[in-house]
Amino acid sequence: MNIESVLNELKRATAEIIDFERIEKLVRKYYESGENYTVKLGLDPTSADVHLGHTVVLQKLAAFQKHGALVQLIIGDFTATIGDPTGKSETRKILSREEIEENAKTYQEQVFKILDPEKTTIYYNSEWLDKLGTRGLTELTMHYNVARMLERDDFEKRYKSGVSISISEFLYPLFQGYDSVALKTDIEFGGTDQKFNMHMGRHLQRVYNVGKEQAIVMVPIIEGLDGVQKMSKSLNNYIGVTDAPNDMFAKILSITDELMWRYYELLSSKSLEDIEKIKSDVESGELHPKLAKENLALEIVERFHSKEDAQSAKEAFDKQFKQNKIPDDIKEFNLEDDIWICKALQEAGLEPSTSQARRDIKQGAVKINQEKVEDEQLKLSKGEYILQVGKRRFAKVIVG
Amino acid sequence: MNIESVLNELKRATAEIIDFERIEKLVRKYYESGENYTVKLGLDPTSADVHLGHTVVLQKLAAFQKHGALVQLIIGDFTATIGDPTGKSETRKILSREEIEENAKTYQEQVFKILDPEKTTIYYNSEWLDKLGTRGLTELTMHYNVARMLERDDFEKRYKSGVSISISEFLYPLFQGYDSVALKTDIEFGGTDQKFNMHMGRHLQRVYNVGKEQAIVMVPIIEGLDGVQKMSKSLNNYIGVTDAPNDMFAKILSITDELMWRYYELLSSKSLEDIEKIKSDVESGELHPKLAKENLALEIVERFHSKEDAQSAKEAFDKQFKQNKIPDDIKEFNLEDDIWICKALQEAGLEPSTSQARRDIKQGAVKINQEKVEDEQLKLSKGEYILQVGKRRFAKVIVG
Repeated sequence: MNIESVLNELKRATAEIIDFERIEKLVRKYYESGENYTVKLGLDPTSADVHLGHTVVLQKLAAFQKHGALVQLIIGDFTATIGDPTGKSETRKILSREEIEENAKTYQEQVFKILDPEKTTIYYNSEWLDKLGTRGLTELTMHYNVARMLERDDFEKRYKSGVSISISEFLYPLFQGYDSVALKTDIEFGGTDQKFNMHMGRHLQRVYNVGKEQAIVMVPIIEGLDGVQKMSKSLNNYIGVTDAPNDMFAKILSITDELMWRYYELLSSKSLEDIEKIKSDVESGELHPKLAKENLALEIVERFHSKEDAQSAKEAFDKQFKQNKIPDDIKEFNLEDDIWICKALQEAGLEPSTSQARRDIKQGAVKINQEKVEDEQLKLSKGEYILQVGKRRFAKVIVG
Repeated sequence: MNIESVLNELKRATAEIIDFERIEKLVRKYYESGENYTVKLGLDPTSADVHLGHTVVLQKLAAFQKHGALVQLIIGDFTATIGDPTGKSETRKILSREEIEENAKTYQEQVFKILDPEKTTIYYNSEWLDKLGTRGLTELTMHYNVARMLERDDFEKRYKSGVSISISEFLYPLFQGYDSVALKTDIEFGGTDQKFNMHMGRHLQRVYNVGKEQAIVMVPIIEGLDGVQKMSKSLNNYIGVTDAPNDMFAKILSITDELMWRYYELLSSKSLEDIEKIKSDVESGELHPKLAKENLALEIVERFHSKEDAQSAKEAFDKQFKQNKIPDDIKEFNLEDDIWICKALQEAGLEPSTSQARRDIKQGAVKINQEKVEDEQLKLSKGEYILQVGKRRFAKVIVG
């Protein structure tokens, strides 16, 4: 067993690690004495819809599980069951006990496709937070001060720009930190956006004399299919782990080569060496990048569905691709911003007139980026589009 | 019954009233239908040492009791029994249940010299605050925001000057406000320094749908014996309600005429008309101001002790006064700052030499402002002093 290469593997695809020395000690101790250590991840139970963005950290936990880690998966039911009585937060969902458990169940089904269930314990944080009581919570709030809390990025921005911060929002980082006190966590995992809250865990473990201060592993926030913005449901640039195999496959095939390498690094279970090999094969021309992308898609579909599902997703995609194939050499047109679709079709030479364009749209014969156009009043904003009329007429338009 | 004059009497000696219309309604309703209303005062049980500064608000409550008010006296035991685990606040005393009850008992003995016990109920706020639990407290904190909390004078100053504010300090105004929710208070009473916290009671009664919003009666902060600074134990310018009759009497006789009128207004039970009469009698020369002061002292000593105690305090004072009487026309001397007492005695012509002065101090024959000098090394700082050697030698020295 080469500890150095284990440690390298554990460091992979992380954005920042606080107190790596402690992690090294825990791993070495495990290999010397078989003693396990605990790694914690908090889950928000208000939505059980896990997408690939969430799986980055799960993959990381799974890697640690192979080297002595016992996962503490915390369902943050405490805050999720507290309503916001001011009614100010429209996005805030209050969940019933049943909904929480339903979501927790769905979570489990999804996360155990990645985590080893034998080395995972699920906790509900209401267990220890309810026990605090008014007194315990008041004591907890004595351990942090207002000025330091306001240094948290988002609080600072909101405070300075006059956007209201409810005092309860100051309690949530304390709750998250206290979870680490209650569970005597060795290492906490989260996205880089959780840095402040995870530091709170270290701080509170110290002031509550837990006898340890957790290390922190931060994973990068993964970009969505557009390669630019954070993967999120609201931006519709995500791959859900419950997406149908065909959708999942097609979405991965749609990403750029650059993003493919990012996804390889963050999402694939392949070793760093294997990924380097694929990369150099692509660079040397031995492997076509589309094949590399297919392999990544196959691996991910297989993880959340099955080998068979992955294979038939590939076949369906190939078939569809051949049908919808866009010719390699289509003409390009530069058009002004905010152009009416019918005008664009005419200027790109795909339609003789805007009225003909209008008729074709009504009959469903016009596509933009392979999607049927429904609205004949549509305007095209800044961007690149593949316009298509019927099966064979294509043009690329650059708007703006 | 003249409601207008009752309302005037109730307004007397207040610094500010919020929602006087509501108070007027409550009083009128009491006289129409006999329906009582509730008035609240919070007491800090960390010290049971009540001084006249505290009695201003108690007098006000007593006045309201005569016109339909039932007093809610709240012992703030909840926060007093919570330790500050950070150990940062050295002045913060954690009290045991026994100490709280001991102090509450002492409070009762003292306050029932002013309040009508038949129309007073004592509450401990842990009763409802403990019931809140982690959930209830978290919900409570949703009802106020950080920016508005930081607008409280003392918080704003501390935040701007970088002095730490623990998050728990944001909870205390919420606790005090929630007391008014739990007790459905009609009017809250307090010093002007409690304005923010009492407004919180109004705010929380509204958001918790109590069905009323308390009026607020603020009483002035009373000046101490020096006539300048707030009466407080730490400044040693106070009259404790448990002071011995003779001390109490002598302290009141020591104040200036100007402060006497302030104390009449804030501390006497006499009607405004009676006080005006005394004032005009003094102004017209019909009544000597010393007699007016004696009458005030008699009233206050009688309130906390008895008529007999007051009378014998007066006699003791008169006797002492005659013995210690300082001649009306004594010589004045201007001396340099920080002068040694023995040198001062010599320069004021009271002693032939500093060594003789030293011997007289040792024998207890030297007084400053009628107090025996114990320390022959004493230096006199900036100020005016009456120096005295033996029974008959006097001088006034102006130092600095």
